[in-house]
Amino acid sequence: MAASGSRSLLVAANRGPVSISAGAAGREEVRRGGGGLVSGMVSALSEVGGLWVCAALNDRERAAARRAPDGHLAEAGYDTGGLDVRMLPLDPSTFARAYNGIANSTIWFIQHLLYDSANTPVFDAGWRRLWAAYERYNRTFADALAAEAAPGAKVMVQDYHLNLVPRQLREQRDDLHIAHFTHTPWAPPEQFGMLPTAVAREILTGLLGADHVGFHSRRWSEAFLRCCGRFLDADVDLAAGTVRWDGRTVRTGVHPLGTAADEIRAKAHDEDAEAGLAHLREVIGDRKVISRVDRTELSKNIVRGLLAYRELLRFRPEWRGQVVHVAYAYPSRTDIPEYREYTASVQRAGREIEQEFGTDDWDPVLLDVANDYPGSLAALRLADVLLVNPVRDGMNLVAEEGVVLSEHDCAVVLSREAGIADQYGQDALLVNPYDVTETAEALHAALSMPAAERQERWKRLLSAATALPPADWFRQQLDALDT
Amino acid sequence: MAASGSRSLLVAANRGPVSISAGAAGREEVRRGGGGLVSGMVSALSEVGGLWVCAALNDRERAAARRAPDGHLAEAGYDTGGLDVRMLPLDPSTFARAYNGIANSTIWFIQHLLYDSANTPVFDAGWRRLWAAYERYNRTFADALAAEAAPGAKVMVQDYHLNLVPRQLREQRDDLHIAHFTHTPWAPPEQFGMLPTAVAREILTGLLGADHVGFHSRRWSEAFLRCCGRFLDADVDLAAGTVRWDGRTVRTGVHPLGTAADEIRAKAHDEDAEAGLAHLREVIGDRKVISRVDRTELSKNIVRGLLAYRELLRFRPEWRGQVVHVAYAYPSRTDIPEYREYTASVQRAGREIEQEFGTDDWDPVLLDVANDYPGSLAALRLADVLLVNPVRDGMNLVAEEGVVLSEHDCAVVLSREAGIADQYGQDALLVNPYDVTETAEALHAALSMPAAERQERWKRLLSAATALPPADWFRQQLDALDT
Repeated sequence: MAASGSRSLLVAANRGPVSISAGAAGREEVRRGGGGLVSGMVSALSEVGGLWVCAALNDRERAAARRAPDGHLAEAGYDTGGLDVRMLPLDPSTFARAYNGIANSTIWFIQHLLYDSANTPVFDAGWRRLWAAYERYNRTFADALAAEAAPGAKVMVQDYHLNLVPRQLREQRDDLHIAHFTHTPWAPPEQFGMLPTAVAREILTGLLGADHVGFHSRRWSEAFLRCCGRFLDADVDLAAGTVRWDGRTVRTGVHPLGTAADEIRAKAHDEDAEAGLAHLREVIGDRKVISRVDRTELSKNIVRGLLAYRELLRFRPEWRGQVVHVAYAYPSRTDIPEYREYTASVQRAGREIEQEFGTDDWDPVLLDVANDYPGSLAALRLADVLLVNPVRDGMNLVAEEGVVLSEHDCAVVLSREAGIADQYGQDALLVNPYDVTETAEALHAALSMPAAERQERWKRLLSAATALPPADWFRQQLDALDT
Repeated sequence: MAASGSRSLLVAANRGPVSISAGAAGREEVRRGGGGLVSGMVSALSEVGGLWVCAALNDRERAAARRAPDGHLAEAGYDTGGLDVRMLPLDPSTFARAYNGIANSTIWFIQHLLYDSANTPVFDAGWRRLWAAYERYNRTFADALAAEAAPGAKVMVQDYHLNLVPRQLREQRDDLHIAHFTHTPWAPPEQFGMLPTAVAREILTGLLGADHVGFHSRRWSEAFLRCCGRFLDADVDLAAGTVRWDGRTVRTGVHPLGTAADEIRAKAHDEDAEAGLAHLREVIGDRKVISRVDRTELSKNIVRGLLAYRELLRFRPEWRGQVVHVAYAYPSRTDIPEYREYTASVQRAGREIEQEFGTDDWDPVLLDVANDYPGSLAALRLADVLLVNPVRDGMNLVAEEGVVLSEHDCAVVLSREAGIADQYGQDALLVNPYDVTETAEALHAALSMPAAERQERWKRLLSAATALPPADWFRQQLDALDT
């Protein structure tokens, strides 16, 4: 067992609660925060003097992490809001290979079923060099956690970037209580088995180093358990949600992350968002609004959403001139060719709708592919209908934020393949994300829904969206480590 | 119940045992046969004076089918070898939509997991017109079968083109004994559920109109049963292989089609094949031969096979100059853009290997993308190693024919995702088709295998390949209808 440190609670995540970048005139810009999930974990850590371990994501962060004693940013004078943050200065090539080459490509694509199997993936010698970098990247986290954790500490490992950490850590520190949470879906065995056999086993046994393995949906935890049965021949109890492996019983848990309503409401009413709202109101007038907000991500299904809107206008002509589709699709992973091509497809689909239906006084689509966060919050406030139709999604927080922010008791047209579909159920209008016609009909039903029914549904949706805010979500998992 | 006909045994298949095309100088050319499967069914039909119902596939066939009384070709003077063949003159647009638009696109892609889910499929209003054509095409078969079948007759419906026929037929003729056989894999529920909900149910209930639903592999029959459980909420008994549905119990059966050894051996020793063999021997000399023969089909994984061969030459340099990869990839579905692009990728991969390793006296790859059937049989006779690495395959008859024809006790590098992997098991070298490195290592192991081990394995492979030749395969299913 390695020498132990002094921290009783640790979070490990690729991204830290503090980001450092080059600001104006070469000055270093330090930002805290970013989202309810981070705030939820930060507040729990701060209570007990915990530690957040993260990777340096760019050159500035690497320089800062190297300058700081053992990477502890606060000790180098960075304002971390009182939180102890240890940033790991991985070498840029290892980081890029692990982050882009494996986590955001292979693992993301496997878990979201995005591969075009006739052509991708290709697991060759070059890919194996990327995988070796992912192992090193995980090992760097595990080593830092092993050095910092007090005897019997709780270590909360976040997401698909760090699938190998639980086992790597347990091998050094069997005294720790380790949890892992996957924010993506989990692939069924048929897709997970596309991975090289040794790698599939390495990911599964990596997670099984934890005591508790968490997911947003029972569908994902069951898929994980089925993979353990198939590829490890482990003793799996689907009903109990447990796996026997390597002499230990590992529990899975379902913790559907909700939204921090007050925090998102505050942001949606700041000056920038109000300005965005005023602008949108002027353009849209008193027409109905179908809103969507997504990263331009292959799994988000923005093109089929636009095609569904086109079918709505084609086959339900009564809506022409009466509705505007506000689609915020902010840039994502623009260094990956498939993502650039996808953005082009989104723009093309938007243009085609303009050309087919646009008139002098009506723009049927307001498509924004820039990064306009306040504008996107304004779009959610204006929504009569919220469209969330991913081909597959771990949870989908926009589906929650949109319900919280809508000032029109919005109806939600929701892909059944999103984790949040478990919570929303029939209060949303559930659709098959590949079925453009069904989605178009659901948009029609949502636009046509009597106000009273819409309000009833919306109230229940709101209650579901806010049932497990981030701080409670995190607390649940801490408690799960005690039992 | 419709009026009944006089046939006690009927086969329904998209393609008939007779084909009619425009020959030289505009003369009509009539050809019989094509493969052991057809011969097997024809001989069983001929014994009892049965009927084969098929679609007219081109203008010539449509004209012939219209000319013949009720489409019975023999009555119009066509030489059907004594077999009664009824050819259905579907209108060209219905046929093209059903065959290309649904069967070979949607259903083939779903069952082989070929969709690139971020972009395809798109189930929109246009797609629904294709689906309506598929329903009409199936209905035309069902009506013809209902009119021709004697009371209590057996009707053997073939493959994914005719998924709706069993139910459409049972609704007219509840007295019949109906079997359906699927020659493709079956998709797990996660993928099958990409289909519009009503269509997924229509396909499943279509097949459940049969008494017996057959597959090549238990993996496919189980996937079918799981789909019935998921999408129909039917009462499924996985162990017994049965489904209760609509007041009836439908049985599934696993009938792994073998090859007709004598028939394929005879073809591989005809004059054209001998000429092909002589030519290949001259080019290859006494080098080792890795052979593959496939349609250029997205599921056949030819590109990754070439990439594996490239890794073999890169990382096992002892094979440079010592081995030739003979790859016959004959054209397929060249009217579909994805298939043309795939052919280009195959050619590009072949060229890259030539450029990296070719020398003045050694061509590392002999890639033939023309349609040279005798040459492909010669390639199988020459094989020291047979490479069959589909991403997914109902059975794979080349894996069987290659073993029968090899004159060198060939070793088989086989994708575990092919149905035949159930029969071959560890006597083949099983690989993950996405894992190029593992495939390269399996090629190395196959080339390096001691002769005695190779012969032992080959004998068992041969016995597996010929265990259930087509006539027995068909008889098994007829018998299954009696129990």
